[in-house]
Amino acid sequence: MNPDGQPHVAVLAGGVGAARLLAGMVQAVPPGLVTAVVNVGDDLELHGLRISPDIDTVVYTLADAIDPERGWGLRDETWRTMENLDRYGGTTWFRLGDRDLATHLFRTQRMSEGAPLSTVTAEIAAAWELGLRVVPVTDDPVGTRLTLLPDPAAAGGQVGPEEVSFQEYFVHRQHGVPVLAVRFEGDVAARPAPGVLEAIMTADVVVIAPSNPIVSIGPVLAVPGVRNAVRQRRESVVAVSPIVGGKALKGPADRMLRELGHDPSVVGVARLYAPLAGTLVIDEADRALADDVEAAGLRCVVTDTIMRDRAAAAALSTIVLHT
Amino acid sequence: MNPDGQPHVAVLAGGVGAARLLAGMVQAVPPGLVTAVVNVGDDLELHGLRISPDIDTVVYTLADAIDPERGWGLRDETWRTMENLDRYGGTTWFRLGDRDLATHLFRTQRMSEGAPLSTVTAEIAAAWELGLRVVPVTDDPVGTRLTLLPDPAAAGGQVGPEEVSFQEYFVHRQHGVPVLAVRFEGDVAARPAPGVLEAIMTADVVVIAPSNPIVSIGPVLAVPGVRNAVRQRRESVVAVSPIVGGKALKGPADRMLRELGHDPSVVGVARLYAPLAGTLVIDEADRALADDVEAAGLRCVVTDTIMRDRAAAAALSTIVLHT
Repeated sequence: MNPDGQPHVAVLAGGVGAARLLAGMVQAVPPGLVTAVVNVGDDLELHGLRISPDIDTVVYTLADAIDPERGWGLRDETWRTMENLDRYGGTTWFRLGDRDLATHLFRTQRMSEGAPLSTVTAEIAAAWELGLRVVPVTDDPVGTRLTLLPDPAAAGGQVGPEEVSFQEYFVHRQHGVPVLAVRFEGDVAARPAPGVLEAIMTADVVVIAPSNPIVSIGPVLAVPGVRNAVRQRRESVVAVSPIVGGKALKGPADRMLRELGHDPSVVGVARLYAPLAGTLVIDEADRALADDVEAAGLRCVVTDTIMRDRAAAAALSTIVLHT
Repeated sequence: MNPDGQPHVAVLAGGVGAARLLAGMVQAVPPGLVTAVVNVGDDLELHGLRISPDIDTVVYTLADAIDPERGWGLRDETWRTMENLDRYGGTTWFRLGDRDLATHLFRTQRMSEGAPLSTVTAEIAAAWELGLRVVPVTDDPVGTRLTLLPDPAAAGGQVGPEEVSFQEYFVHRQHGVPVLAVRFEGDVAARPAPGVLEAIMTADVVVIAPSNPIVSIGPVLAVPGVRNAVRQRRESVVAVSPIVGGKALKGPADRMLRELGHDPSVVGVARLYAPLAGTLVIDEADRALADDVEAAGLRCVVTDTIMRDRAAAAALSTIVLHT
């Protein structure tokens, strides 16, 4: 606790759901006490540019600059570059808006000058005048790789399973193909970025955001040292379930849990997080499963977890911090 | 000559002046008979992107897509990416329009996949449905480097001469600093791109476009094999003077010639090109210097060389081809 009795908070974060919770968190406590430790497993290099989708979603959301309809990228966006890229038959399935491109140009230029991702991320967050700290979980490359079920209808008759990057799965194939396995390329050699372990070890509350446990929180925990640090803080770790009523609020978390042999429910989430988190926050819709969550070994808190707006996110954050 | 009696033409090209002449040349002969061999000494890598300004000026001009006011980049351009890059304090002195960025994204992506610049350039030219061939003089890196006079007023009191890239000199410093020397980094190891030597050796007319002799034509000739090929074709080589009435029509060619010890006139140009070109085309404004040009050892043709519009460029091209 800081002298005002306000808790320091570390939030393990993926993209949209985490960004919304963080937008509430900086209302619940002074932003300077909040550190977001963000997934980089979705990062990609495209057109020679370094793109960090989860970091950008967190930054743009906290800057109140995110496009509310799409849930990614900047509002008031234009698409002139992508339109002209179509002329060349360039790669346009990963949409980069004209304003958004500036972030990738800046990141790429700074990294080509030798700046680590964590430094550039701090610079980007400062440019948007964010009060919280946004830190990639690692400055080293860790790439989420998904093994997909072969599609018997595919042209050329793909016979064996196929391994693809996260964005290939998520954006290009619109997460419509069953997942057989997930791994995080580079995880063994990766080191936590400066400040990551300290943030986890010194926080009064460590929050696992309502992000996909497999492909958003998974790569964060896969960086050597992080899972162990979280486990050591288990009694102060509060996870928020990304599954409500058996469904992911966004994305394929429910299907992916099932495909990988987990229960696509708050109980499945509880079993995954039981070694790491002392508390799981679930939605009112899942109140009937609270006993099953506790049977998995976590304290269960039931509340409204749907972050319809910033006020709802702030209310949820307050509950998370004071369970 | 092809069966119709139309000449095959190879044009050694820089940026704006060369692009205008090429736009006339494809009216004077069927475009399929024209090969532009383009300077890459101005190329740069910025924001991780591969940028080839002279190639793009040639392509955009021939596609009638160049911005007529600026003389570079695309018409109907917007600047959303650059505006947002200002937020980060990113590098914005080299302006990249939103539509123009697509060209650099495509080039960078294709080169990251292993495609040589000449292949990508052909793909870009095809996307703009150009009828002529546009070939970089080399697929290897050749970078124009300029040694600048130290600026006694510079912050920090720069004492010695300073060597900078072409774009640093031309765009960032707006070619306002005297040049002491010019070299082409990488020239010794560079090889002509596929088709370059063949185009020069088999053309009925080899044209040296009205580009800066030092920093636009210079890097083309510096690629091993090119200068020698041009010299072998001397009797069929026609240069068009970029200097009219002692001034460059565009850019710092006049000052640069003087700074490097050459006469900033058509006579200076004649002396530079005499070993390579049998003919120099000069403007009516310089008619009085025709004898001095011939004294340098070239045949001198006097005509209107100011390419006010495409018709004027076509008329000049016809004269160049039939001197």
